Amino acid sequence: MRTNPASTPSPGGQARKAQLVACAVDALVERGFAGTSVAEVARRAGVSKGVVTYHFRTKEDLLGEVVTSLYRDAGQQIAEATGDSDSVIGELATYIRSNLAFVADHPRHVRAVMEVAANIRPHGGVPAEEDPLSAHLRKLIERGQATGEVTEVDAGVLAMTIRASIDAAAARAAWDPTADPRGHAEHLVLIVRRALQATETP
Amino acid sequence: MRTNPASTPSPGGQARKAQLVACAVDALVERGFAGTSVAEVARRAGVSKGVVTYHFRTKEDLLGEVVTSLYRDAGQQIAEATGDSDSVIGELATYIRSNLAFVADHPRHVRAVMEVAANIRPHGGVPAEEDPLSAHLRKLIERGQATGEVTEVDAGVLAMTIRASIDAAAARAAWDPTADPRGHAEHLVLIVRRALQATETP
Repeated sequence: MRTNPASTPSPGGQARKAQLVACAVDALVERGFAGTSVAEVARRAGVSKGVVTYHFRTKEDLLGEVVTSLYRDAGQQIAEATGDSDSVIGELATYIRSNLAFVADHPRHVRAVMEVAANIRPHGGVPAEEDPLSAHLRKLIERGQATGEVTEVDAGVLAMTIRASIDAAAARAAWDPTADPRGHAEHLVLIVRRALQATETP
Repeated sequence: MRTNPASTPSPGGQARKAQLVACAVDALVERGFAGTSVAEVARRAGVSKGVVTYHFRTKEDLLGEVVTSLYRDAGQQIAEATGDSDSVIGELATYIRSNLAFVADHPRHVRAVMEVAANIRPHGGVPAEEDPLSAHLRKLIERGQATGEVTEVDAGVLAMTIRASIDAAAARAAWDPTADPRGHAEHLVLIVRRALQATETP
């Protein structure tokens, strides 16, 4: 019986896993989902197939880590950038900017995740509920409305709109080298700022 | 040799095609992409498989018409609603409202199209350029900026944001019977209106 390496990661093991994820990203971008086999990833990493399957039992496990690592890295970068601002509009601006800065810095990883998402769907179709990323933004906007910092718009609709705009900009940046996700962020910040500032003077 | 029925549609042929599309929508919603065979659609329509393949050569042709007919019907409903307003903000509002009213009135058709879209992808991945639906909105906003009716925001980013928000609301409404696309439209109109009204007084 072999133990699950994920439960006791050594520094060397972590470096190897990161290397295999990077090779899987390259394979996804250059060969697509169908062309990203365990053998192809092993070839790119210069190791045997057994080394890949020691760290990731199946192709699906490896591609799952491609997706998970992107959200983990992006979440970490966004968390490091935000949280310092007392202002809700400031925090929203930092969220939008750091999210799209991550996209700008990791276009291949974003594109690889989209390649996976287009080919692996969750069972039972699209989830109907509010997604967690929009819920986070909604709570932030509601917090600003409770203190009176920002005006009354529907926080759920604005949160969904911000999230959808970021995702659309990420999708374009992943495929179009001339796209400018940081520029999108600045213009989106302005749109959100205007939406949250009451035009009526008291 | 048989002629192509699509090139010479009779009223009876059009009614039959519409019936087959409606049966395909039901099959997609209830059985998913894999369960929507020509045989299943024929069974639901109470006709032989030959009748289906007379009007649609393959399953792909039939599902293509499921997608095309949704965009044709939605486009017609939106075109009938818009075009009367001299005001850009008014026209944007009508566009958003009529688009999401169509979604509210046709949740099964929207869901069926999403089922098709999730399973059939265009060759060569996601297109990189601006999509035509966003381009239409961008030109509308730019027209209002040229006349000075609306303020200077980035028309491309705002158009992409409006389009992404509508699509996200449509995706939720297709799967969540408690969703309120018309309510989303009203709140989105308010957000867009605020974004396009200059807060500075001259």
